[in-house]
Amino acid sequence: MLLSAEGLREIAERALSAQRVAPSHARIQADLLIEAELRGLPSHGLQRLPRLVARLKAGLAHPMTSGSAHWSRHGVLSVDGERGLGPVVVMRAMEQLAAQVPQQGIALAAIRNANHIGMLAYYAEAATARGYIAIVLSTSEALVHPYGGIEAMLGTNPIAIGIPTEADPFILDLATSRVSMGKIHHHALTGNPIPDDWAVDAHGCRTTDPEAAKTGAIAPFGEAKGYGLGLGVELLVAALAGSTFAPEVRGTLDAVDVANKGDVLILVDPASGSGTAAGLAAYLDRLRASRPADPDRPVAVPGDGMRARRARALSTGIDLPDSLHDEIRALARVAEREKETK
Amino acid sequence: MLLSAEGLREIAERALSAQRVAPSHARIQADLLIEAELRGLPSHGLQRLPRLVARLKAGLAHPMTSGSAHWSRHGVLSVDGERGLGPVVVMRAMEQLAAQVPQQGIALAAIRNANHIGMLAYYAEAATARGYIAIVLSTSEALVHPYGGIEAMLGTNPIAIGIPTEADPFILDLATSRVSMGKIHHHALTGNPIPDDWAVDAHGCRTTDPEAAKTGAIAPFGEAKGYGLGLGVELLVAALAGSTFAPEVRGTLDAVDVANKGDVLILVDPASGSGTAAGLAAYLDRLRASRPADPDRPVAVPGDGMRARRARALSTGIDLPDSLHDEIRALARVAEREKETK
Repeated sequence: MLLSAEGLREIAERALSAQRVAPSHARIQADLLIEAELRGLPSHGLQRLPRLVARLKAGLAHPMTSGSAHWSRHGVLSVDGERGLGPVVVMRAMEQLAAQVPQQGIALAAIRNANHIGMLAYYAEAATARGYIAIVLSTSEALVHPYGGIEAMLGTNPIAIGIPTEADPFILDLATSRVSMGKIHHHALTGNPIPDDWAVDAHGCRTTDPEAAKTGAIAPFGEAKGYGLGLGVELLVAALAGSTFAPEVRGTLDAVDVANKGDVLILVDPASGSGTAAGLAAYLDRLRASRPADPDRPVAVPGDGMRARRARALSTGIDLPDSLHDEIRALARVAEREKETK
Repeated sequence: MLLSAEGLREIAERALSAQRVAPSHARIQADLLIEAELRGLPSHGLQRLPRLVARLKAGLAHPMTSGSAHWSRHGVLSVDGERGLGPVVVMRAMEQLAAQVPQQGIALAAIRNANHIGMLAYYAEAATARGYIAIVLSTSEALVHPYGGIEAMLGTNPIAIGIPTEADPFILDLATSRVSMGKIHHHALTGNPIPDDWAVDAHGCRTTDPEAAKTGAIAPFGEAKGYGLGLGVELLVAALAGSTFAPEVRGTLDAVDVANKGDVLILVDPASGSGTAAGLAAYLDRLRASRPADPDRPVAVPGDGMRARRARALSTGIDLPDSLHDEIRALARVAEREKETK
């Protein structure tokens, strides 16, 4: 079913408000979910909303807090998320960093005890909209095996980089796993086999069966190098946020445990450097104009596809499964009923 | 020929001194080259020395400067390398960052106009030896094609991450290219074909001929994700250091042009975060003990292999080609002759 972003946003906000989420917080959380849908990333979109509501009901997510923070050094903000909604805590930390970065040039927020922060591109974009460079790191449950290993020991540990240019910002957002577990679940649902280099089963054997992969571990992307980067994220976040290592991480995929992964946000003021926004934009255009391997598929810059999908979905609507639409509308109606009984 | 690290270090220092390189600078530059040899990275080792000497002779590398720097913000050091030797300029910048990091928590040096900085692991290790976390980025000549492209538009754009732990530090050092151009040259020298996913020829066609690959472009590692990271490094360094983009970069592989790539060094004080060095070391040990895919090849942590090779080479010696040994001894003898004639 094709639905407008505005209509879905309103439903999501009402569903969150029904759980006593502060209006400004509901707006940020709903915006993140809608922006993921618009970019064709449904695994980080509205399908997360029912679980989020369940977490709010269970007291695992706090509806009002945006975390408490203190500057442990002039350039380092130490954030206790206080079980707040992930995007609420990160956007609050970004505001605080943004206030320091014109003087500091660079500042870092180390965040623990916040709920799932979702699609990292959201924060990279928000930083570039303010004119800043951003690097965002996050950890997760153990889903990825080491290069040369077969046990799930690492999170999917995404990295995002946002850099303002004179034209569109550069927005990179990637998990350090070969694929997302969401994609494997999607193959399981549709009954399609997976390529044999995506995952191992519970016995550590390569598998093309998505059901078997769900109980095993996903490969790191890019072999030894991708493993190294994913591990680098695991260690950087744990060292700075004091968060838990993947094998003990809980609470981003369930409605049972407190979220104990960590998040790191670094902002840099490009005005403290010597490059120019015009130079960056011109280079990216040269890259797009460089010779493609397939004449019908021009060279793309990370973020190009995402922007195109977003523009399309804004005009044609978001393609949401009917069952999910019904489910979130039901969650939103709770709010209406409460209003009516007042 | 197996040669002791100490003997080779002395030869390298003398060869640099013969070009009027300041003694402390010669020590740093020689140490970098020897440490690369010890780690089994000859492409970044003594084979760079003759070209470095040629660059000093040609005035493309300045023998005395360690660059001039100013703090453009409290946490950002803007460095003009003044054509200095790469490791000399970076180590001087690291000293300056290290003096600020206890107060700032995080600080960044953006370096332009320095010569080739060589093996990035060197700086990551030096930072962890001081107790700091380091992220090091560097750019290079255009050698890598975009994902979906066939023209060399990006540098090999390496990333290094160093994180102190209670045991050995975590040291990651990787190029964002599929392989190094040095490895392709090595295949060309030994007459061995290369795998067909390493590079394209000058016409943009995949090739197994290393000679053809030398005139083409190397693939990025890890497909679209590795391309995205390599491009992220290209843009971050250019934005901050104001250095040139890959297609116009010169001076790290030749003895003709000024080096106009850029380098970025970020130091973070782990004491500004909430993690513990003991926790990091314990997690890395769990990773090493996790089930391997091949029972005979235990899971490794980035840096493990490098440390093992270094220990072995320190005891057995460095295996240097005779011709290279002769060449650098000749460069070193210039210094002796000059001393004798004084």
